[in-house]
Amino acid sequence: MDIERAWDEYVATVSELETLGSIEGLLAWDQQVNLPVGGGANRARQAALISRTRHLRLTDPRLGELLEILSEAELGPVQSASVRVMNRQYRRATRVSAELVAAFTHAQAEGFQQWISARQHADFSLFAPSLKRLLELTIEQAQAIDSTRSVYDVQLDIFDPGTNTAALREMFESLHQGLLPLLDAIQGQTPIEQHGTIFSVEGQRSLNLAVVEAFGLDLSSGRLDYSEHPFTVGLGQGDVRITTRLDTHSLMAGLSATMHETGHALYEQGLPRATWQGTGLAQAASLGLHESQSRFWENYIGRSRAFMEWLGSIAPVHLGSKAPDADLLFQMANRVHAGAIRIHADEVSYNLHIIARFELELGMMSGDIEVDSLPEAWNEKYRKMLGVQPHGVTAGLLQDVHWAHGMFGYFPSYTLGNLYAASLASKLKEEMPTHMESVQKGEFSDILIWLREQIHSHGRLMEAPELMRSVVGEGYSVEHLLDHLWDRHGGLYGVQRPASD
Amino acid sequence: MDIERAWDEYVATVSELETLGSIEGLLAWDQQVNLPVGGGANRARQAALISRTRHLRLTDPRLGELLEILSEAELGPVQSASVRVMNRQYRRATRVSAELVAAFTHAQAEGFQQWISARQHADFSLFAPSLKRLLELTIEQAQAIDSTRSVYDVQLDIFDPGTNTAALREMFESLHQGLLPLLDAIQGQTPIEQHGTIFSVEGQRSLNLAVVEAFGLDLSSGRLDYSEHPFTVGLGQGDVRITTRLDTHSLMAGLSATMHETGHALYEQGLPRATWQGTGLAQAASLGLHESQSRFWENYIGRSRAFMEWLGSIAPVHLGSKAPDADLLFQMANRVHAGAIRIHADEVSYNLHIIARFELELGMMSGDIEVDSLPEAWNEKYRKMLGVQPHGVTAGLLQDVHWAHGMFGYFPSYTLGNLYAASLASKLKEEMPTHMESVQKGEFSDILIWLREQIHSHGRLMEAPELMRSVVGEGYSVEHLLDHLWDRHGGLYGVQRPASD
Repeated sequence: MDIERAWDEYVATVSELETLGSIEGLLAWDQQVNLPVGGGANRARQAALISRTRHLRLTDPRLGELLEILSEAELGPVQSASVRVMNRQYRRATRVSAELVAAFTHAQAEGFQQWISARQHADFSLFAPSLKRLLELTIEQAQAIDSTRSVYDVQLDIFDPGTNTAALREMFESLHQGLLPLLDAIQGQTPIEQHGTIFSVEGQRSLNLAVVEAFGLDLSSGRLDYSEHPFTVGLGQGDVRITTRLDTHSLMAGLSATMHETGHALYEQGLPRATWQGTGLAQAASLGLHESQSRFWENYIGRSRAFMEWLGSIAPVHLGSKAPDADLLFQMANRVHAGAIRIHADEVSYNLHIIARFELELGMMSGDIEVDSLPEAWNEKYRKMLGVQPHGVTAGLLQDVHWAHGMFGYFPSYTLGNLYAASLASKLKEEMPTHMESVQKGEFSDILIWLREQIHSHGRLMEAPELMRSVVGEGYSVEHLLDHLWDRHGGLYGVQRPASD
Repeated sequence: MDIERAWDEYVATVSELETLGSIEGLLAWDQQVNLPVGGGANRARQAALISRTRHLRLTDPRLGELLEILSEAELGPVQSASVRVMNRQYRRATRVSAELVAAFTHAQAEGFQQWISARQHADFSLFAPSLKRLLELTIEQAQAIDSTRSVYDVQLDIFDPGTNTAALREMFESLHQGLLPLLDAIQGQTPIEQHGTIFSVEGQRSLNLAVVEAFGLDLSSGRLDYSEHPFTVGLGQGDVRITTRLDTHSLMAGLSATMHETGHALYEQGLPRATWQGTGLAQAASLGLHESQSRFWENYIGRSRAFMEWLGSIAPVHLGSKAPDADLLFQMANRVHAGAIRIHADEVSYNLHIIARFELELGMMSGDIEVDSLPEAWNEKYRKMLGVQPHGVTAGLLQDVHWAHGMFGYFPSYTLGNLYAASLASKLKEEMPTHMESVQKGEFSDILIWLREQIHSHGRLMEAPELMRSVVGEGYSVEHLLDHLWDRHGGLYGVQRPASD
């Protein structure tokens, strides 16, 4: 068969898969933003139909033939990257039997239900059987996909292709060692109390919107809405939506969520959707890289002293005379206080939560940790790693939904995001030494242009670590993140990084 | 093949068609309520894919086989009604070639574009070639579907199955004759001026919401939003959405639209979706019957004296001290003033706009009216029928979008809706003589329960005229509508209906 014709047919198929994916996205977005409570069962039916249709298209033997023809042809870089990415998806989808897919979907639904119920009754034993089942099925699935690699490596392919367990283990170990002296140095310092003022929803909406627009989100190709759990979804070209949540008791809670989601959305808006339609490449290179963009804007920019100077200068317009000034904002945004809950963690202790989950997941996969003894293992890990004791299982191992969805191997993405963000920030400092002066003036467009060139415009052309190597000369390393954390928090708490050995 | 198994397979297929239809509905709703301008092309791609998928499922020969098996079996009333309805859809979808479907879709897109352009330049000749093409293709399509019947009859099957051209012609003729004396009697009376006060959007939102909830719309299974063109869409069980539009200069404009859409939505919420899933019967029996529900609430209830007593009593809570009282509201809602624009027409002259379009459509179908001479034919018709001369073609034959979408035969639904609504109101008066006393107290639940029993719960089990016959003893007749109009408007203008010959 003629390569050009095969390519055209392939692009039409992948384009359809992309469109089906974007419809799944709309169904999910609408469910969280608009769906009346009575519409739940109908929405489940709609989502199941699209997901089934998408699975049928993805596992169509004709796509397999096209992939085979194209794999053997001489292709340009975009074409071969496309074939690599779609081959991975095709393999995953076809190697897992329909029965196993059905069993997994069922176990996920049940797992989520039992997780909710276990949280309500603060009783892990209600969730344990589902968790065991999800673990078994995850292992079975991974072995069906590639029995030559470890289960955890196969799982990482879903979320962060290009990484592997051994490399992550090494990275986490060195990050852990690097974080200990910083935590030792600032732990026990009195945390700065939250500002007690209540800010109106209207004032916060207007301030949040001003930040979103200043960062450069194009609202003629996107939306900002409100939902219980903030999230971002790219629904295809010209349609990227974020949601956030405001809290009248905490200005930073809403702002952090908004800046985080804006970071994700800027990445989505920068993907080359028009030129790479039907290649599967107009997507984030990995979840970790996606997370790097949200963390870059939320943490590196959004908690910086320079940003707070600007924010403090515009805040009174939106919040009135009670608006906090730059000093207070900077302190509010950078409290460090190790706690039991990941999503409330500060920039410094956050990664310890991830390391704990990574080690527990590996323990579960290898059988070293029995599911039934997970509560003790969890508490032990938290005592050792963060020096805290969760108040009950709901604030402990039932805090995250990921395992209830069977998403083992997802957590490392969060720390990879922090590492990538710090590496990008360090490179940006080199290439644009005065960028924090722009931030202080509320000018972010040069920074966004830089991220577009370095990261967004490359979509999924390379695996994330490879793309990062091409930008900053390294895949992921902990040094830039440690530098950044010492710099910001050491400075705030008045401590210095000890000279390295 | 075993009938029971055939039925189960058939239900699964129809259920999938219903779900695909509801996804099309969500894509359309979101487009009008939420879609960022940049997302247009992507949305078109999504809609085209779902519509193509739906067409493939509907024309699957396997569905034809199942329909054949079931047509020959002994079935209960629900099953045979389902087979009748789906047979019609299957026949329509399979008898029209893919080329013709594509040509029609293309002509619709072009027609809409050219209609926009013709309106902008107030130049009908820009739209004329598209209109000719749409007319040709409509005729070709209708002949492919059923060459034994007239084109207009085949078209009516899409919108109002159970009606036909001859019956409509007779009905319109007698309606026309009946309306003339009323118009003669009240034409020339000074129209009551609109209240000049400006009402805030917030106040109007809250008043509109109070009306929607009082009518009985269940907002835990529905939504009320705002869009440029008000509309209603049923997105499946538990998810019925309406939009409306508010105008600070006209309280009645927003309220009418809201009550109209609420009427549609109450019908949608009353359809037996759960029990009849997968039968194709949990739908409105016809567009005319759908329209009857919106007109019933908007006009019969929503412009009544009793309703205005209640509305006047709650209006100050929402609009403050400037709120109009019942007298003024009643007058504002019932101005009669023949004009050139259908959607601004009052209850009395409205149907003349429809008769004009019906006659022009028949003229175009038969070739008696050439498309090129349509502007003259239109103006002539309006002069004779409504005694008005449209200011230019934009306020004339370019005012409606229907023909630009190739929807010939749609307009009669509006008048059928008015007739059905009046017949239902007349029956309601018989069965529940004190219902206007309830309306005056803002109590609408007995009326809604009655409509649910008489109309909503029957879905598409019968054709609309048949269902109406079973409820009020007649398919459609003009007498109840004429009675109603004389009663309300004769009363307001102080004239009496002449004794019939």
